[in-house]
Amino acid sequence: MKHVLLSLLTTLLLVSLTSEAQRPPALNSPEVHPDRSVTFRYFSKKARKVSLSGEFLKVPLPMSQDTAGIWSVTVPPVSPDIYPYSFSVDSVQLADPNNTYLFANERFKRSIVDVPGEQPLVHSLQNVPHGKISYCYYQSATLGTTRPLLVYTPPGFNPNGKTKYPVLYLIHGGSDTEETWTKVGRAHLIADNLIAQGKAKPMLIVMPYGNVRPAPMPDFTKDVVNDLVPFVEANYPVLKESTGRAIAGFSVGGGQTLNIGFTNPGTFAYVCSYAPYTATEEFKKNFTDWSPNADQLNKQLKLFTISVGTDDFLYEPVKQNIAMFQDKKVAVKSYIGPGGHTWMNCKQYLATTLQEVFK
Amino acid sequence: MKHVLLSLLTTLLLVSLTSEAQRPPALNSPEVHPDRSVTFRYFSKKARKVSLSGEFLKVPLPMSQDTAGIWSVTVPPVSPDIYPYSFSVDSVQLADPNNTYLFANERFKRSIVDVPGEQPLVHSLQNVPHGKISYCYYQSATLGTTRPLLVYTPPGFNPNGKTKYPVLYLIHGGSDTEETWTKVGRAHLIADNLIAQGKAKPMLIVMPYGNVRPAPMPDFTKDVVNDLVPFVEANYPVLKESTGRAIAGFSVGGGQTLNIGFTNPGTFAYVCSYAPYTATEEFKKNFTDWSPNADQLNKQLKLFTISVGTDDFLYEPVKQNIAMFQDKKVAVKSYIGPGGHTWMNCKQYLATTLQEVFK
Repeated sequence: MKHVLLSLLTTLLLVSLTSEAQRPPALNSPEVHPDRSVTFRYFSKKARKVSLSGEFLKVPLPMSQDTAGIWSVTVPPVSPDIYPYSFSVDSVQLADPNNTYLFANERFKRSIVDVPGEQPLVHSLQNVPHGKISYCYYQSATLGTTRPLLVYTPPGFNPNGKTKYPVLYLIHGGSDTEETWTKVGRAHLIADNLIAQGKAKPMLIVMPYGNVRPAPMPDFTKDVVNDLVPFVEANYPVLKESTGRAIAGFSVGGGQTLNIGFTNPGTFAYVCSYAPYTATEEFKKNFTDWSPNADQLNKQLKLFTISVGTDDFLYEPVKQNIAMFQDKKVAVKSYIGPGGHTWMNCKQYLATTLQEVFK
Repeated sequence: MKHVLLSLLTTLLLVSLTSEAQRPPALNSPEVHPDRSVTFRYFSKKARKVSLSGEFLKVPLPMSQDTAGIWSVTVPPVSPDIYPYSFSVDSVQLADPNNTYLFANERFKRSIVDVPGEQPLVHSLQNVPHGKISYCYYQSATLGTTRPLLVYTPPGFNPNGKTKYPVLYLIHGGSDTEETWTKVGRAHLIADNLIAQGKAKPMLIVMPYGNVRPAPMPDFTKDVVNDLVPFVEANYPVLKESTGRAIAGFSVGGGQTLNIGFTNPGTFAYVCSYAPYTATEEFKKNFTDWSPNADQLNKQLKLFTISVGTDDFLYEPVKQNIAMFQDKKVAVKSYIGPGGHTWMNCKQYLATTLQEVFK
């Protein structure tokens, strides 16, 4: 009996310790049903209006409140994928308090819902050998600071072995962080799965933090070339010629990919740009009145791709950039498919790239 | 001019793409001033009441709104440390949208503010050799699933070298995740700093996900002993005797530490429990009517510590547990100091443990 009382007492204390004005109960949210419909839940007795925004929706959906203060809405079956979503509570946008999986981003707080398919998706955790993601640091002389870095090493990786691995440098979007490619893009699981199927070569994937605060952002190009690549090549058993290096990135990172790749064509033999955002001073400086030696460039580059979705808000400028490269006789492989400026698309772009580089 | 227009257009589109009803401007929040006062900012034109809660405050502080819709409050100078905090916006608790550093937790969303000291703190990023944190997976036969795992390896770690390292198994609190010990506890930086100073031995720190959903939680004890430890010992160059293994944990993880340690005293020679929450069925089963062979136990355990703060809401039950162990003649070293049931305290408990184990 004493134990029961103690248990009750400490439970109450635990609850009160961590409680805010309205500490919510633990809710099952998001609840993905077998038919792939999804129920989202949020607790608030005081809220007047709660709605759901998600990249599986065209417009926000209102949520309705039950007598216990639990707001909910069930979304009809959605295609298997990983989607960002958020709640709007009296116009305050917030992540789902009951969902641990967050979108790694500097500007907004969103949650992620994973809707599995009947067959495992390319980004699903499957029963295959797994690589590792290492969180580490490097010194950037360019930026005068210690920078965070994530490095995926493939299954069976031996840092002291004879195998020298190729390296994909992979850059996130504008307000993302060095964690977005793994937390949202599941780059490590995509690599695990494609390597297990023999569709991708075992490689390192190096995911730096691509933002420079305060700007100027062109410093990131110098950081990658003068600090990051030398750090990786001094500390990992990797190939040190251009055919062992690829660079790819999404959105602002897709623009950075073009800037870094084309100002250093002898460094990266593979340049893969996903829905690049190019309305930057650096891009203007590099590509306005650009007159490349296309023959030489096309020999240096083993692969140059630009991917974009037809619903992407950058579809038009990306098409214009593809045309610009074509005008200058630079061999570019364009991947134009459905979808918008989303990480659902981005994962697919990466899955395609992983099967093409280093071959 | 075309470029400027394109830039403006795409910027507007970028903003609208990611905007919610009230996409906030990028605010400098939290802004830590040189005198260690801190300004917190939040944007909302619609909110009626915004307040700040933080572990540097005894009660929430109201924030006030300027004419542009920016709510703010400046907190007087606080002691150097890392503190969790959150905003309450019309009673909705949320993390600071402008702060990337989040408290890894399954139940609440909080942000973290790092208030530096004049001298670097034990958890600060310093210019010393850095270890790495590896994100990986292991198969748990006990739980029938793939479990996530973080493994800190020290600077100079060579997975194929002759050096065999000791291993600290480190468990988070009740609603925390496998990331809380690094994201909030900065276990990797504390280890980097203490190893650089020669105060801690180079070791691996293994940080599993300690929750079992759905319960029963005693399964975690089996998972650690039958799945996790064998996985680590099969895949890393580590010592395989009890004097090469330590177990530690905070709150619910501190209770798990006692359960795991004392049901397997031949496995872990070091047991360090931080503010343990012990009002559980498993603890009751293990320690009610417990009659240990204290002599044997005291020989097996090279170190057994319990740490708690006098302001911890678990102070009384922890003191009772210390007395229980003393009654049974089990040698326990108690660390009782100021502070509450917080990660500020928890970091200090770990810093103490790292200097005591494997010596």
